[in-house]
Amino acid sequence: MANNPQEFIKINYTEMESTFFDILIRCGLSESKARTCAEVFATNSLEGVYTHGVNRFPRFIKYLRNGDILPDNEATCTGKAGCIEQWNGNLGPGPLNAIQCTDRAMEIAAVQGIGCVALANTNHWMRGGTYGWRAAQKGFVFIGWTNTLANMPPWGAVNSKLGNNPLVIAVPYQQQAIVLDMAMSQYSFGALEFYELKNQQLPVAGGFSTEGKLTTDPGEIQKSQRILPIGYWKGAGLSLLLDILATILSGGDSVADISKKSAESGLSQVFIAIDLSKLGNFKTISVALQQIIDDYHTSVPDGSSKVLYPGERVLAVREENSSKGIPVLLNVWNEITNL
Amino acid sequence: MANNPQEFIKINYTEMESTFFDILIRCGLSESKARTCAEVFATNSLEGVYTHGVNRFPRFIKYLRNGDILPDNEATCTGKAGCIEQWNGNLGPGPLNAIQCTDRAMEIAAVQGIGCVALANTNHWMRGGTYGWRAAQKGFVFIGWTNTLANMPPWGAVNSKLGNNPLVIAVPYQQQAIVLDMAMSQYSFGALEFYELKNQQLPVAGGFSTEGKLTTDPGEIQKSQRILPIGYWKGAGLSLLLDILATILSGGDSVADISKKSAESGLSQVFIAIDLSKLGNFKTISVALQQIIDDYHTSVPDGSSKVLYPGERVLAVREENSSKGIPVLLNVWNEITNL
Repeated sequence: MANNPQEFIKINYTEMESTFFDILIRCGLSESKARTCAEVFATNSLEGVYTHGVNRFPRFIKYLRNGDILPDNEATCTGKAGCIEQWNGNLGPGPLNAIQCTDRAMEIAAVQGIGCVALANTNHWMRGGTYGWRAAQKGFVFIGWTNTLANMPPWGAVNSKLGNNPLVIAVPYQQQAIVLDMAMSQYSFGALEFYELKNQQLPVAGGFSTEGKLTTDPGEIQKSQRILPIGYWKGAGLSLLLDILATILSGGDSVADISKKSAESGLSQVFIAIDLSKLGNFKTISVALQQIIDDYHTSVPDGSSKVLYPGERVLAVREENSSKGIPVLLNVWNEITNL
Repeated sequence: MANNPQEFIKINYTEMESTFFDILIRCGLSESKARTCAEVFATNSLEGVYTHGVNRFPRFIKYLRNGDILPDNEATCTGKAGCIEQWNGNLGPGPLNAIQCTDRAMEIAAVQGIGCVALANTNHWMRGGTYGWRAAQKGFVFIGWTNTLANMPPWGAVNSKLGNNPLVIAVPYQQQAIVLDMAMSQYSFGALEFYELKNQQLPVAGGFSTEGKLTTDPGEIQKSQRILPIGYWKGAGLSLLLDILATILSGGDSVADISKKSAESGLSQVFIAIDLSKLGNFKTISVALQQIIDDYHTSVPDGSSKVLYPGERVLAVREENSSKGIPVLLNVWNEITNL
């Protein structure tokens, strides 16, 4: 073999997107759906979220081919109570359902100030930040979250009963956005693998060893399967509440229900949008936000890292990957071009 | 002195509440306002949240006497956009303003499914869980948070720019509630003091030493003033976003603004209520929630602690303190009876 499969190559955005598009068309997606999905996966990669971009694309295709994701299905409204709506994702592609429900929450908010869409029976939305950026760049506050299969133990337990249930909060900022996109686990299993491959310890404890001690050793945590919730008991509690809300608001499946299935499918999600243009003077809001960020940026660094607001790093990564190409492991790209 | 001031005595709920009531009346609160405030402080103590109950009462009185809390003032509506309203707390007593805005969010939700009240210019709400319990016991989901003065450094910084901005999420459960009430710091400075007084290490790292190392030593953290956000960079990001939302939705003061004042006053808060009775079959919701909690309770304990859902411990504490009296440090009670 001429090339090392663990070597990174660079693929430019246009090539990545059109490669994804062609494969999605062959999987039965309509042209417009294939276009949107290809854009989501390529943009996530462009912005540095490879785990939910290019690296995840093969699994998305596998789910389409297995019938866990139904390419033609769209979300449909099943219930309405004022500014809250319940939707059924009908097991369609997760990113398309999530875009549809984000847009619907914004539509409600544009009339009523706030809109909430609870979505049952959908699929993995990939990167939650996608929907935060989308809403914030249109002038909306976004608060959203998803449940997942059980992959994290409650505080004081050894077996996984909680999802890592990512939470997204986004606000418009300048022409961009401030976007927090955080799972309830300190590290994902993907991150553990990444550190283990590089033979590195985690920067901070990420879970328990098989002896029940907190550890920074990614291999030990993979053995125990006991990843750590953020803030120990606090993140465990927040994860439980996010699952409860997603489940009862949407009428959909809980983490416990999803964990009984053969694939991580039929998730429950919540999308809340707030239209800032309804709240008095938008200029006043921009000034207030700018003052917060200016004050934040006067923080005295401890020397270990730059003090950045959530989403700030995305701008630099987007620019670098736009000009130099998106880094992809050769074996991942080979797998994709053979799909 | 016959008694050790560091000794705990037991005060029954009725005596505590009427002691608070008499003092509040002398501070100029109306009878109904004094009654409600006394109930909030006594209930927080009864339910084990002493830091925001009996132990905090003297500071509340000090703020009233200093004029930082204005006893007669009530929150007033300053703007409305569909299901979102902006209110001004007019520097009235924090718990009264928070009750008023919780109730108003529920009123909006009872008509529109979801209601959001953003409150500027208020005072410390004491225990955020108070408002979660209140809404959940009336059948509403509650999501609320407050900003605070800066007491926590951003990730990668040495100086405090973030508040610990407590977040509350509550849902009705059986005749009670599941209530998550969590600050964004792993421990409060009050908790550090508590461990230091007992000459104990923290169960997990709670901040940095003056040398910039993570430590479980409460004294070291008090010296560095670098308490740790939950989940390191994650809780720091969440704290920033909660402050941004509270500030821009209410049009009130940010953590940075509050930190410039002589007292922690003029806070910004958000109250979101969702009326579950509007979302189809309430019985279905109860069954779904019960299934989540039943599954959660099948967790295999690691032997260190019981696996409890957020708020579960409150029930037992409430019962114990109801029957045996509320434990109070003698010197705290002496201070209160001399107010």
